[in-house]
Amino acid sequence: MSPEPRTAIATVCLSGALDEKLVAAAAAGFDGVEIFEPDLVASPMPPGEVRLRCADLGLSIDLYQPFRDLDSTDPARFAANLRRADAKFGVMEALGVDTVLVCSSVGADAVSDVDRLAEQLHALAARAGERGLRIAYEALAWGRHVSTWDASWEVVRRADHPALGLCLDSFHILSRGSDPAPIADVPGDKLFFLQLADAPHLSMDVLQWSRHHRLFPGQGAFDLPAFLAPVLAAGYAGPLSLEVFNDVFRQADPERAAVDGRRSLLALAEATAARGEGVDPVGEAAGRLSGHAFVEVSGDSSTGGVLAALGFARTGVHRTKPVERWEQGGARILVNRSGAEAAIAAVAVETADPPAAARRAVRLAAPVPPRERGPAEADLAAVTAPDGTALFFCRTGAADDWSGDFVGTDERAEGIGVTGIDHVGLAQPFDHFDEAALFYRSVLGLDPVTAAEFAAPFGLVRSRGLADAGRRVRLALSVSLLRRGRWAPGVSEPQYIALEVDDVVAAARAARAAGAPLLGIPDNYYADLEARLELPADVLAEYRDLGVLREETPEGAYLQVCTDVLGGRLFLALVQRIGDHDLFGWTDAPVRMAAHRRRRLARERVQA
Amino acid sequence: MSPEPRTAIATVCLSGALDEKLVAAAAAGFDGVEIFEPDLVASPMPPGEVRLRCADLGLSIDLYQPFRDLDSTDPARFAANLRRADAKFGVMEALGVDTVLVCSSVGADAVSDVDRLAEQLHALAARAGERGLRIAYEALAWGRHVSTWDASWEVVRRADHPALGLCLDSFHILSRGSDPAPIADVPGDKLFFLQLADAPHLSMDVLQWSRHHRLFPGQGAFDLPAFLAPVLAAGYAGPLSLEVFNDVFRQADPERAAVDGRRSLLALAEATAARGEGVDPVGEAAGRLSGHAFVEVSGDSSTGGVLAALGFARTGVHRTKPVERWEQGGARILVNRSGAEAAIAAVAVETADPPAAARRAVRLAAPVPPRERGPAEADLAAVTAPDGTALFFCRTGAADDWSGDFVGTDERAEGIGVTGIDHVGLAQPFDHFDEAALFYRSVLGLDPVTAAEFAAPFGLVRSRGLADAGRRVRLALSVSLLRRGRWAPGVSEPQYIALEVDDVVAAARAARAAGAPLLGIPDNYYADLEARLELPADVLAEYRDLGVLREETPEGAYLQVCTDVLGGRLFLALVQRIGDHDLFGWTDAPVRMAAHRRRRLARERVQA
Repeated sequence: MSPEPRTAIATVCLSGALDEKLVAAAAAGFDGVEIFEPDLVASPMPPGEVRLRCADLGLSIDLYQPFRDLDSTDPARFAANLRRADAKFGVMEALGVDTVLVCSSVGADAVSDVDRLAEQLHALAARAGERGLRIAYEALAWGRHVSTWDASWEVVRRADHPALGLCLDSFHILSRGSDPAPIADVPGDKLFFLQLADAPHLSMDVLQWSRHHRLFPGQGAFDLPAFLAPVLAAGYAGPLSLEVFNDVFRQADPERAAVDGRRSLLALAEATAARGEGVDPVGEAAGRLSGHAFVEVSGDSSTGGVLAALGFARTGVHRTKPVERWEQGGARILVNRSGAEAAIAAVAVETADPPAAARRAVRLAAPVPPRERGPAEADLAAVTAPDGTALFFCRTGAADDWSGDFVGTDERAEGIGVTGIDHVGLAQPFDHFDEAALFYRSVLGLDPVTAAEFAAPFGLVRSRGLADAGRRVRLALSVSLLRRGRWAPGVSEPQYIALEVDDVVAAARAARAAGAPLLGIPDNYYADLEARLELPADVLAEYRDLGVLREETPEGAYLQVCTDVLGGRLFLALVQRIGDHDLFGWTDAPVRMAAHRRRRLARERVQA
Repeated sequence: MSPEPRTAIATVCLSGALDEKLVAAAAAGFDGVEIFEPDLVASPMPPGEVRLRCADLGLSIDLYQPFRDLDSTDPARFAANLRRADAKFGVMEALGVDTVLVCSSVGADAVSDVDRLAEQLHALAARAGERGLRIAYEALAWGRHVSTWDASWEVVRRADHPALGLCLDSFHILSRGSDPAPIADVPGDKLFFLQLADAPHLSMDVLQWSRHHRLFPGQGAFDLPAFLAPVLAAGYAGPLSLEVFNDVFRQADPERAAVDGRRSLLALAEATAARGEGVDPVGEAAGRLSGHAFVEVSGDSSTGGVLAALGFARTGVHRTKPVERWEQGGARILVNRSGAEAAIAAVAVETADPPAAARRAVRLAAPVPPRERGPAEADLAAVTAPDGTALFFCRTGAADDWSGDFVGTDERAEGIGVTGIDHVGLAQPFDHFDEAALFYRSVLGLDPVTAAEFAAPFGLVRSRGLADAGRRVRLALSVSLLRRGRWAPGVSEPQYIALEVDDVVAAARAARAAGAPLLGIPDNYYADLEARLELPADVLAEYRDLGVLREETPEGAYLQVCTDVLGGRLFLALVQRIGDHDLFGWTDAPVRMAAHRRRRLARERVQA
């Protein structure tokens, strides 16, 4: 990993009042902040107090922003705008910040003539320069006449004043599809500031896209390493600063959002450096993943019973804790019989150098979980994901292997054909979906391979599939697109472990014979499947009998049989993949979710 | 009001499982439903059972939908699609529904040649006709070759089969800006089905717009009476049916959403009929509003104290209840000293014929509140709004006037210049914002006059201003755009009463002298105001001293001074309007909200 970059964050990225934003930025380890003017205007802290507060927190103030609609074809209006700027220069002096962002104008009186515009910016820069201040001029993607970075550079070049330079914003540049490569040719001392934001590809008004849907780098679809590289090549020496307008972040816990944002910059810096050197950053730092080592679930004796019915054998018991190791094929599941509701407690992945992987994760601001360890237990390299799941880095078979913590049993089982863990499904809390996606992506070095949005019985659900290049480790993350309505309290999506099988029908038949609680699927589903796929009657009959769900695309098919939800919020699925694809069965998810819901309501009726 | 139209709703509009949707539709009084195929596929009820269930609930099944991608340039694919249709015809027979919606194809193999397309639709219609079924062909706005209603009509005309007609969907037609007027010339018996949806004007991909942002008629920006009129003129005789894909409705209580939807159709039918006759529907039915009669708040003795400091006199006490009447100028506030937290309990408006207004409201599915009434009390015509506020229709000064319930006092006050109630601000629960807007719009006959979205300290807030044509009754509705994050529990926006004054500075000065708890506004706000507006120094000094907020636009200015939040969730504001405009002070709302939040935190610190 490259040396840590200087990082900053605009206060607009975070929820709360100005002081809460500053505290959150400092706690997350940012070096500086951009003060977003409306945050200051609503604050009871005078600018001088904000300056002291930032100093106490160890934060520099790197930018004051934004100053809007400077230029004007109306000389009186322009003169008034200069007076307005003078007032803001006074605020900046009290804040102790030397650079202000001036964005290209959107008003009907905006100046279109480049020389006249340069002249007006020169006049502003002259006033700023006299006070030791600087103007960073930025092209808004929706600016009236200046809407591209090269247009803003042309104005700055013609204005030719030492106190005038550029502010580059990745959103404004990449949302318009501009090529960032020529930025490398801009003199570095004219690049006054750099704002970074990612975004999903959306086909909508760019202003609305910008104001509501920006994301931290690595959470969206923009190629930010390809953007940052020419900026650094030009000699930009300022901080990497986040400016993200996002409806969810705006109302989420600012301390968590700040950590999420800082992680995004550290991962971006690492990826940009690796891109320059042509190496794989994760592989370099910690080795690529080679598979799932195990999944640990909390549960009780019934959890083991279900695993036994699914063909698992209890091959070991922990030396000191109420933990059992269950195995089948390459799949290992640890059951922590803590009595807590059934849920996924930990996901463990195989990697060549676990301590290096954990060190890299900690550098990416991953918290380290408290872990009680007995005297003879392996020192598992671990961090905690935003959803609370522990992540272990393992090298199964090495000398200090985790499996040494277990005493072997002589229990064996015939198995039902499970060959490994296909993927783990983790439902995410509403406020932290993008954070989780970035966390797993950066810390595990996974790539986003697919995304979907579907109508579940209680509203829309958004899902993302992550996987390593070799498809040895896959994760499926999902979130309710809006929080749940009050009419359906307490309904949160379960997590699951998808078990890889070669023949889902045979596996499900064996599992059912052994008493596994398989989830029933309505006949209506099979009537529709028949109409759509024209499957042979006997195949369809078996699907119907066993509750097989089959998602089919031109690339292949994803077949699954699910269990009921065990205890709290966990189910298991037998998964067969036909063809080479990144399906996760999401087309069938609403049917599965409706079936799980019926089982839950039926259980509740029995209990009542 | 015109006779009640036949109404239907597509199950996709509502949250939950199919049975819950059907129950909700029946409870709301719909005559029929469209069965959305994915709802059936996920349901354990076989089609025959759905048929019986609907019959038991008194619902007809008016449409089965959608059948996608029928036509194909590939003969084998087309043949398979016909077989798929045959299977669905079987489902329809079991359901007892005779019409299926076939939407224009989006696939790469969609047929572009109009005659060939007509031929394929003719083939489908022939198969349907043999079984007594009908095909309603609809142009999706994003159809590959057929994307406008007139293109779909041309195909249906050429196919010329009695079992083939059109399905018209207001969203697909109005989102493309098509003129609906020529629909009047289509033979009525070729209009097989009508789907209605409204939407806000959004500049985005039409598919995403359709899938996430549709609204019930009257909640968006489309002119639906102008759409419905030519459809009825053509002789369409089927139900008015809702097909609305909306992220919020999809996860809200289906029973409430169904009532909201049915109200939208009743109001649309009324407006369409009135449009034809060139009359004002509300005025015809119940008389236009002529002002606020009173606002009733819950509170305690301190509430009265604040009103006294604001220049109100307690002019009456209720004969039997702990309710006080406070008055100043044209403003009347009833304080119900129930001891409950301070909040708005009722809004009362003046109208020429209160019983007629209440009858019309009940026809629009407004619930009637239970009301305890003493033997000598006025029988106030009342309904309950979705946010729980009671709405009273009054004719103050009439023989059976509400004011007769009060015994006059001889208390008088000098006043501070309040002349009336400018508007009432009602914060709405997340799931019911559009419902509330439609309710107040339709039941009170108000028009949406302005809308805004602003960044509050805890996230985005959306607001809508409603007013009658004469601006005698105004309401401001607001909602948090996302639910609150867990990091800020229990923070809900307060409601408020905006009191009209001619001189806010004089009024605030008098109020403060009398001990009113005015809200302090930070100096930073006035530094910014000075930079922006160049106000005279003495004016600015008074603003700063009194906490005046000043929103200014080319149309005029909106000046306000707010009190602290009283007890639970209520504050009062003194409001001065300069110029003729529909401002509500939303530009300054984030500053006001941050200041209220600081007061709350300070109180909590004192209490702790």
